[in-house]
Amino acid sequence: MSDSLAAIAGFRFAAVAAGIRKDGRIDLALATAERPVPTAARYTRNIVRAAPVLVAAERSRSGMAQAVLVNSGCANACTGEPGLRAARVTTAAIASALGCEAAFVLPASTGVIGAQLPADKIVAAVPGLFAAAAPDGLADFALAICTTDRWTKTAEAAVGVAGRVVGVAKGAGMIQPSLGRFEPKPSPELHATMLAFLFTDVVATPELLDAALEQAAERGFNSTSVDGDTSTNDTLIVMASGASGKTASLDELVQAFCSVTESLAESMARDGEGSEHVAELWVRGVASDADAAQIARTISTSLLVKTAMAGKDPNWGRWLAAAGRAGVEFDPAQARIAIDGVAIVQAGVAVGAEAETRAKQSMKGPRYQVELTLGDGPGKARYFMCDLGHEYVNVNADYRS
Amino acid sequence: MSDSLAAIAGFRFAAVAAGIRKDGRIDLALATAERPVPTAARYTRNIVRAAPVLVAAERSRSGMAQAVLVNSGCANACTGEPGLRAARVTTAAIASALGCEAAFVLPASTGVIGAQLPADKIVAAVPGLFAAAAPDGLADFALAICTTDRWTKTAEAAVGVAGRVVGVAKGAGMIQPSLGRFEPKPSPELHATMLAFLFTDVVATPELLDAALEQAAERGFNSTSVDGDTSTNDTLIVMASGASGKTASLDELVQAFCSVTESLAESMARDGEGSEHVAELWVRGVASDADAAQIARTISTSLLVKTAMAGKDPNWGRWLAAAGRAGVEFDPAQARIAIDGVAIVQAGVAVGAEAETRAKQSMKGPRYQVELTLGDGPGKARYFMCDLGHEYVNVNADYRS
Repeated sequence: MSDSLAAIAGFRFAAVAAGIRKDGRIDLALATAERPVPTAARYTRNIVRAAPVLVAAERSRSGMAQAVLVNSGCANACTGEPGLRAARVTTAAIASALGCEAAFVLPASTGVIGAQLPADKIVAAVPGLFAAAAPDGLADFALAICTTDRWTKTAEAAVGVAGRVVGVAKGAGMIQPSLGRFEPKPSPELHATMLAFLFTDVVATPELLDAALEQAAERGFNSTSVDGDTSTNDTLIVMASGASGKTASLDELVQAFCSVTESLAESMARDGEGSEHVAELWVRGVASDADAAQIARTISTSLLVKTAMAGKDPNWGRWLAAAGRAGVEFDPAQARIAIDGVAIVQAGVAVGAEAETRAKQSMKGPRYQVELTLGDGPGKARYFMCDLGHEYVNVNADYRS
Repeated sequence: MSDSLAAIAGFRFAAVAAGIRKDGRIDLALATAERPVPTAARYTRNIVRAAPVLVAAERSRSGMAQAVLVNSGCANACTGEPGLRAARVTTAAIASALGCEAAFVLPASTGVIGAQLPADKIVAAVPGLFAAAAPDGLADFALAICTTDRWTKTAEAAVGVAGRVVGVAKGAGMIQPSLGRFEPKPSPELHATMLAFLFTDVVATPELLDAALEQAAERGFNSTSVDGDTSTNDTLIVMASGASGKTASLDELVQAFCSVTESLAESMARDGEGSEHVAELWVRGVASDADAAQIARTISTSLLVKTAMAGKDPNWGRWLAAAGRAGVEFDPAQARIAIDGVAIVQAGVAVGAEAETRAKQSMKGPRYQVELTLGDGPGKARYFMCDLGHEYVNVNADYRS
């Protein structure tokens, strides 16, 4: 859908090849509003944080921003004081071109950890970025921020009756976002991966955006795993241009934002480095939603579950064993497991070969649902996860070389 | 060393092909003492527990046992009441042949979850087991309990001046033991993998064995990970025949048992399904040993770290990022990472290309040391971990089919 993605009123987008990546692909992306506009953000809870996370987090606390500057090819993580300086210098160049304070430009980076960001190349690319900036530039923006992604990731939704929100994201590896409010620490930083940006044309305060984003982060990215590796660079930003002239209720914003983040998150899991199958995992029947999420996270990062998925094998003992080590109480004798609605485990034991044959059929498809019901409790959670096959090893054993 | 493993006074060992495995390999192993002898045990903390774990845990609380009966080819997990019955019937057949109460025979199983244990085949094999039982049968015992293991795992150590302990283990996948005291739950059960048995000829009380085993479990198996998947069947049992006529101090027992469990645990990590490289991971400088262990566990199960190891790539950002998401406080700006003593990160940033080239050389070897020093705190932990490459996928995507 990226090519047909409609413009969103009040924003311009651009991307150029600044020479950060070795392969010459476009690697620098810019989104600008016409003035500082209400903004909310979430950043990785990893205590090792990249320089752009530290800089953006400090700046976005004001609730206002006019631009985001995003590069692929370098995470600018574990780069110490020079890394912080590079994040500040490059965003200052954007601010200067926009005629705003640097505090209104938020940086984000993705790529390999430990390399220094080539600030000079980025500064040199700024005029080209502004020359390219256009309302319909979102597809270029989406492409420029990709790393190991096999496709660009965009989504859109209506907000209430008159507003819209569009979202763009990247992410295929180092994906198990844990996005939270930023709590500043007296220290620099570290590697890269899930980035997502939402742009809406509604009129909203930073507080309202923040409240909606909280739920959108939880139900979308924070309920998704490719490899269990929470990145040092995870960033989620929403900006509201107000260009529609319409307000929206919190419920409307939550519904719209969640629609976008859930769609983007599922796309990330589907694109999980080398993955061929994505599962929508439901855990139900435990004491609380938090307990259900803990079990879902444990299952979704289990190597044995992920390789069983690659093998299209409904080896349900691996699911149940992973649930059992999640640190959550449940009675295994009540466990029910179903794949695309076909129960393969009832009351903790196997249903039989015929059910497993049907489940195996489902598992040959690109997407299926796995439901674990572990009791009568009210707790439930949904998680997007993917398989782990040979292509994952190909992508990750040779990433830097 | 398995072939040359010496006998241990007071025990006999045997293994036969009972037809549990489809491939006709030996799959049923027995170890017996001459009478019920002091025994201590640890079982998986997974709340989904196999039938043999439930039965053995109940029985071993007496602190006395005369035999262990171990099968591969079937985990007898998630098998409900019939599974419990099978564990009881098969151990009763051993007890009957020994002339002891069934309560003194401890079962253990490893294999696929969900299949029922063929009790009839096992009972029919009992006469053959006793016919084969001999003081020098430990190598057969070690082979019979293997599943995806590429080699048998045995170790031995002196206990004090006159005693000895021999250990035998299996385990290559579903390995991240979390062995603890068994807390009975009002529920049946679940899949299989790490099994280890220690046999010593010293005179010791069950309480003394238990105290020594606690440390041996922690420093050995509980500090090891292949895939992060704690099994439903993990079992560690030590029996003391007293045949040497000599006692030993707790310190002597701890030293001997830890020597054996650390050796067996490292062998498991080295044999981690399809692995080609094992790392001895040290984490130091955080507030407590528990914090260090938490970071070590997180790193050792990181897919990005494990695939970097497979790629022989000192991509240290992955190590540091994994440490940063472990939920433990440290200052990334103080981080130092060294591989086989060569520092590649100092004060949180890269040392340089030359250091990484040297580290890469180390990573081509089958075993190397990775040290993360994260501050000045007293906490430290050692963990055995392994790489994840294509062979892991081969082993696990097609395990049941």
